[in-house]
Amino acid sequence: MPVSETVEISGHLMDTGVLALVLDDVLEYGGDYVIDRFDVGRTAEDESHVVVTVRHDDDESLQRLLMRLQAHGMNAVDPGEAVIRRAERDGVFPDNFYATTNLETVVRLGGHWVPVDSPEMNCGLKVVDSRVQTVPVSDVRAGDQVVCGAAGVKVVLPVHERSTRADSAFAVADSAGHSDQAPASLVRQIAARMREVKDDGGRILWVAGPAVVHTGGCPALVTLVEAGYVDVLFAGNALATRDIEAAMLGRLPAVDLSRAAEVDHGHEHHIRAINAIRKAGSIVGAVEQGLLTSGIMHALVRKGARFVLVGSVRDDGPLPDVHTDVVEGQRAMRMELRGVGLTVMVATRLHSIATGNILPASVPLVCVDINPATVTRLAERVSGHGVGIVTDTGLFLEQLVRELIPSYGAAAVG
Amino acid sequence: MPVSETVEISGHLMDTGVLALVLDDVLEYGGDYVIDRFDVGRTAEDESHVVVTVRHDDDESLQRLLMRLQAHGMNAVDPGEAVIRRAERDGVFPDNFYATTNLETVVRLGGHWVPVDSPEMNCGLKVVDSRVQTVPVSDVRAGDQVVCGAAGVKVVLPVHERSTRADSAFAVADSAGHSDQAPASLVRQIAARMREVKDDGGRILWVAGPAVVHTGGCPALVTLVEAGYVDVLFAGNALATRDIEAAMLGRLPAVDLSRAAEVDHGHEHHIRAINAIRKAGSIVGAVEQGLLTSGIMHALVRKGARFVLVGSVRDDGPLPDVHTDVVEGQRAMRMELRGVGLTVMVATRLHSIATGNILPASVPLVCVDINPATVTRLAERVSGHGVGIVTDTGLFLEQLVRELIPSYGAAAVG
Amino acid sequence: MPVSETVEISGHLMDTGVLALVLDDVLEYGGDYVIDRFDVGRTAEDESHVVVTVRHDDDESLQRLLMRLQAHGMNAVDPGEAVIRRAERDGVFPDNFYATTNLETVVRLGGHWVPVDSPEMNCGLKVVDSRVQTVPVSDVRAGDQVVCGAAGVKVVLPVHERSTRADSAFAVADSAGHSDQAPASLVRQIAARMREVKDDGGRILWVAGPAVVHTGGCPALVTLVEAGYVDVLFAGNALATRDIEAAMLGRLPAVDLSRAAEVDHGHEHHIRAINAIRKAGSIVGAVEQGLLTSGIMHALVRKGARFVLVGSVRDDGPLPDVHTDVVEGQRAMRMELRGVGLTVMVATRLHSIATGNILPASVPLVCVDINPATVTRLAERVSGHGVGIVTDTGLFLEQLVRELIPSYGAAAVG
Amino acid sequence: MPVSETVEISGHLMDTGVLALVLDDVLEYGGDYVIDRFDVGRTAEDESHVVVTVRHDDDESLQRLLMRLQAHGMNAVDPGEAVIRRAERDGVFPDNFYATTNLETVVRLGGHWVPVDSPEMNCGLKVVDSRVQTVPVSDVRAGDQVVCGAAGVKVVLPVHERSTRADSAFAVADSAGHSDQAPASLVRQIAARMREVKDDGGRILWVAGPAVVHTGGCPALVTLVEAGYVDVLFAGNALATRDIEAAMLGRLPAVDLSRAAEVDHGHEHHIRAINAIRKAGSIVGAVEQGLLTSGIMHALVRKGARFVLVGSVRDDGPLPDVHTDVVEGQRAMRMELRGVGLTVMVATRLHSIATGNILPASVPLVCVDINPATVTRLAERVSGHGVGIVTDTGLFLEQLVRELIPSYGAAAVG
Repeated sequence: MPVSETVEISGHLMDTGVLALVLDDVLEYGGDYVIDRFDVGRTAEDESHVVVTVRHDDDESLQRLLMRLQAHGMNAVDPGEAVIRRAERDGVFPDNFYATTNLETVVRLGGHWVPVDSPEMNCGLKVVDSRVQTVPVSDVRAGDQVVCGAAGVKVVLPVHERSTRADSAFAVADSAGHSDQAPASLVRQIAARMREVKDDGGRILWVAGPAVVHTGGCPALVTLVEAGYVDVLFAGNALATRDIEAAMLGRLPAVDLSRAAEVDHGHEHHIRAINAIRKAGSIVGAVEQGLLTSGIMHALVRKGARFVLVGSVRDDGPLPDVHTDVVEGQRAMRMELRGVGLTVMVATRLHSIATGNILPASVPLVCVDINPATVTRLAERVSGHGVGIVTDTGLFLEQLVRELIPSYGAAAVG
Repeated sequence: MPVSETVEISGHLMDTGVLALVLDDVLEYGGDYVIDRFDVGRTAEDESHVVVTVRHDDDESLQRLLMRLQAHGMNAVDPGEAVIRRAERDGVFPDNFYATTNLETVVRLGGHWVPVDSPEMNCGLKVVDSRVQTVPVSDVRAGDQVVCGAAGVKVVLPVHERSTRADSAFAVADSAGHSDQAPASLVRQIAARMREVKDDGGRILWVAGPAVVHTGGCPALVTLVEAGYVDVLFAGNALATRDIEAAMLGRLPAVDLSRAAEVDHGHEHHIRAINAIRKAGSIVGAVEQGLLTSGIMHALVRKGARFVLVGSVRDDGPLPDVHTDVVEGQRAMRMELRGVGLTVMVATRLHSIATGNILPASVPLVCVDINPATVTRLAERVSGHGVGIVTDTGLFLEQLVRELIPSYGAAAVG
Repeated sequence: MPVSETVEISGHLMDTGVLALVLDDVLEYGGDYVIDRFDVGRTAEDESHVVVTVRHDDDESLQRLLMRLQAHGMNAVDPGEAVIRRAERDGVFPDNFYATTNLETVVRLGGHWVPVDSPEMNCGLKVVDSRVQTVPVSDVRAGDQVVCGAAGVKVVLPVHERSTRADSAFAVADSAGHSDQAPASLVRQIAARMREVKDDGGRILWVAGPAVVHTGGCPALVTLVEAGYVDVLFAGNALATRDIEAAMLGRLPAVDLSRAAEVDHGHEHHIRAINAIRKAGSIVGAVEQGLLTSGIMHALVRKGARFVLVGSVRDDGPLPDVHTDVVEGQRAMRMELRGVGLTVMVATRLHSIATGNILPASVPLVCVDINPATVTRLAERVSGHGVGIVTDTGLFLEQLVRELIPSYGAAAVG
Repeated sequence: MPVSETVEISGHLMDTGVLALVLDDVLEYGGDYVIDRFDVGRTAEDESHVVVTVRHDDDESLQRLLMRLQAHGMNAVDPGEAVIRRAERDGVFPDNFYATTNLETVVRLGGHWVPVDSPEMNCGLKVVDSRVQTVPVSDVRAGDQVVCGAAGVKVVLPVHERSTRADSAFAVADSAGHSDQAPASLVRQIAARMREVKDDGGRILWVAGPAVVHTGGCPALVTLVEAGYVDVLFAGNALATRDIEAAMLGRLPAVDLSRAAEVDHGHEHHIRAINAIRKAGSIVGAVEQGLLTSGIMHALVRKGARFVLVGSVRDDGPLPDVHTDVVEGQRAMRMELRGVGLTVMVATRLHSIATGNILPASVPLVCVDINPATVTRLAERVSGHGVGIVTDTGLFLEQLVRELIPSYGAAAVG
């Protein structure tokens, strides 16, 4: 039986193309639409307002379509109350569960709009007391109160500032990888943003891959750690191993730079480094025992910064600090997101995507990689707050530290 | 105190360049050498024989250098008996443990040369009764008898056949990605090799990523499963999820082909598919309950073929069959290597490298990916038995199945 | 002094996002706008109609903005008569010349709308008698009558069919490289399209690079030439040289497949092949003298198909048939565009872009390359009639010929 | 009738792998060999000496094989006198002409060894009076005295310094793209090398593509021009057009950075810029008339530096200074090679390969590009004097100028 719902959206619809996306999705999901009302902004400054009635063959299909439209910020005119159902088994959502985006979301409970804590994509929504939390399917437990269907849920789209007339301090590259700005000037803006975040008491999250070591970025990243610009690091076994191997050998191991992003199998030095840290019990133990005296991991330990290492199926070892269970690893990463005001991802695809999966869309994100596909992929995860730079990681870090700490460059030149 | 050892190698040294690699490594490891004897093969058919004395400042450094040279097939003239030490703690090797290659290796115990079972790189060697096994550092247990130093160990280099005069049935692309052969003719050889392996009673191992689904390779791969050309599949959560999602939606979800290798976040369909399988308990359960009725995973279950799914930190869900602990996942993969006569890796970097890490060098390997870096990386893992093809996965699978099952093509055309 | 013009557009504006592009360009060019009227299509089938008044500080800026908006199909409500000025010098346009797009364009002369012959981008418009032709800046002559400003010019946007409800025989990949279809099914559609073009008496233009030879595509392409599916070939010195070299050596020269797209310097065989053809006077001469007896160029000569070879600064030789003057080469290419109903570009970036520069947007285009950047670049040149496939060229050609000529595959298998 | 010749080579044959290459080529060319003598260097410091007799079925095949072996520095023990034949027609070499490498070469004439002027690959050798010059096939004239066969010709291989013990001022990345060094430290070495070349009175040749403009490298490159570090620039129409367009618009045109290397078709601004310069007659004319007042081309004109612009078939316009005939363009480039002590190639594949084709192997070469394939390709052209860096061009130029002119960085930071 055909069912329908009336949805609406306001904003700079004319110059963002969001309406085209919305109508496209209606058709792709097998629905149909009628535009009921279109109050168009007459000038570049005016907002527009659109009201659309969408129809589908059955309620379940309509609910899924409505959830999809929310990802574009198009919500029901009359959303009503949220529908709550009980999870019947551990690790399984009720059938028609609401699947989340990473956008700011509110849920109507008992006549009030309740904001969702720390929005994360591809989760469910769990109601605990009068609060609403995201919960991954692996963490849902029998008896949890789970929001189902699109009723009573609204997504609040971030305000898209047009880049050509933006006067915000933090200019952005758009989601297609286009930019009006050159990398060198973007580095300056990233440095400025990092200072702002620290001045506001925010935390800076770094996600890094082993190419930081291979491209000679260690001294620059160590300097950033020591200066307090790295509050928490997400990485895998490879970055930590290569850093420790280089620190223990006293030099950069010979590697193939062209494939540096993932080379975790130079000769066998790395497996000996891993064994030595395993013997020490942990990275912190190795620092305390005087076994590890330099490098990125050493600097993090000394500075008291946080790190979460999550393993992958291609790892050797791994180091004793590495989470070998990836779901546990995701949980450990989520615990470190509080207060993060900027995320900087350098030279890792796997851990950057993993971080993008759990980050709210509202956290600005910088992604630097020599592979354009990685940069484009991550830039699409955020809504208006992303910068992507395709370049060598070592040169990026060197230039960033010169912007933040002018004496670094002077010393290097002199 | 300077120490030295005399090592030797025989074979077609003149036209393989192996000697240059050996001498390069001596210097890179900080050692020195004197060439004691060089019996040169006078013609293209003759073998050469070289004897070199290598020196280093201390015994530990010399031992490491000797282990390194073994990777090129250069062994001590007088290797002596293996030195065995006891592991003192779980998960930690003795300091000077022998780090393995994936080449055929023999260990001298009690005056006999004992072959190492299923050689795997970056492991230690454990002596159990009179047998020698590889053991990863995570699996070593206190009390295990571990081989230390290079004494009493020899690596048997595979015979390098010159490609220009090879008359073997299975021609190869060399490690630098060069080839005398075009992809279309390589596909024919791969098909021939697959028939041979099956005729000899061997198993064919596939390693596959989600781009198999995105590039339209499902029908071809399903046909190969049904025809018995897929004995075991290694994959991650993404391939299985995308396959199941496509099967349950009844069509290919709309995805961005240019980034298909890792797109696990199309709309939210995939998280609903995962939830449905979790509710069913397992993929086998979903097939038995009639929930999953087509696709690759369905075909594997119906055919009784094996599969090992290992998760990664970027996964949603995951599916109930996925190993979330990567070290457990590696163990499950190792269990499936017995009898494998050919490995085919398509469209996955992470799981292909993971498989390359645990495979003996003697197992021939085919690697197909649209990304040249992935192909090159894998091709370097094997010693003379690898084929790499840079191409679209769907077109490769379609052409492969046409070679193996001519009626497939005929039906599709007609 | 601020000036303004009222422009309009009709069509499926809601679901194509074209309006966002238009308003974006107004601001980027420094202008401003007021939306005067917006008749919105209420359902997915209805067309919309928008009227906008755009303003700028001076007439020259306004004219440039109006030309830009025409590229999106937005034309003046009251375009008036075209303004014609005389070119004063050879090779130089009047200052405010109308710069063309490759879209269907009409010019108002003496009260009539006159269509532009064979639209080509980045040219001027020349009025000769009562016809309007595109003219590149290098070919304009003193005294030519050149259209200036945007007055009296309209661009007719091709009808964008929505891919999700398209029932046309030739489905398309959109400009961002996304696709609902897998490569294998696209090859089938390309084959069907080729048959249609030939049935309609149209010509098929191929643009090809040397990787056709290196990836083993010669036998397939020769078969296509012989079967009449190649009416004209655009290429450079490298393709012809590699093809001739392979034909004269009787085998594929050993090359590095990973860099095959541009390898024109394998050993010195190629320079000897070039010298031999120079001695014969031309490729046709070499065929007639019995010097060249196989390969692509031989097949073209035998079949009486056309070819245009245009050189580049990296060429050795070149072959005697190569245009060494690139502007002359462009003229020779333009001469061969009449009647082309389909363009197939394989494995060449330089010559594909060059062809894209001179092709009307209305000619459907297929682009096949192992490099995604090349495919994406070309796909953006066309308006709704492009297919891009990222794959190995040899495998593509082999599959294409199997679709077109089923006996080819049968013979190869049997 | 089988014929043979005895050839020899001396040097660090053991650790360079050159012997493997030589013997490989013998077999690939269809010949056979016997190693007559092998005096092996016993230690890492000693040189080796090999004498080999190579055989082939006929003299012509043997001559070609001998020419090939010379590319590795393996010359006849008894080379005899050079054989000279007369070219019979313009643009055609005698059949058995000697095809050159870009290595230092000497020719025996009248009992004396005469060095070849400015060795260039894939040319012939022309004897004029008692001197020997390289001549491309397009420039040979009837009556020219051309060296034929390998007799009387020797190639002098550059001394390969091992990078691990090199104490030369200019460290190198090897031909496979491997490196012991990080990009940031390579930039420092390039800066040092540039100062040395200028101190020695040498010239620095730059080859640049349009991505210099798009990646924000203009200010840095202009500073380098003004400081005298750019003596001559090779480029195409695109770089000059984009630079002039940016200078005339007063800002960077909006472009897609991800495809910046070749984007010559942003809106239509570029075709207007080209028309304006054509009207001025030339780039120098535009500077003198005050039309062009900033940017790279302006800086070159002001500084009196040289530039050679060579067109390609994808060009619009072109600018009046562009050589549209590519063979003429190659001649113009050759004229500017005298005294060049360093070549720096940034962000262009076409013109870098073209320059690599005509450069002697003895000129050190730096290649910087975001595309690894371009860097690898160029690095293989040189023999031991190349540095390749895969990175963003703008960031490279910014860091290079900070190394050379410390005040540049200080000003930018302050």
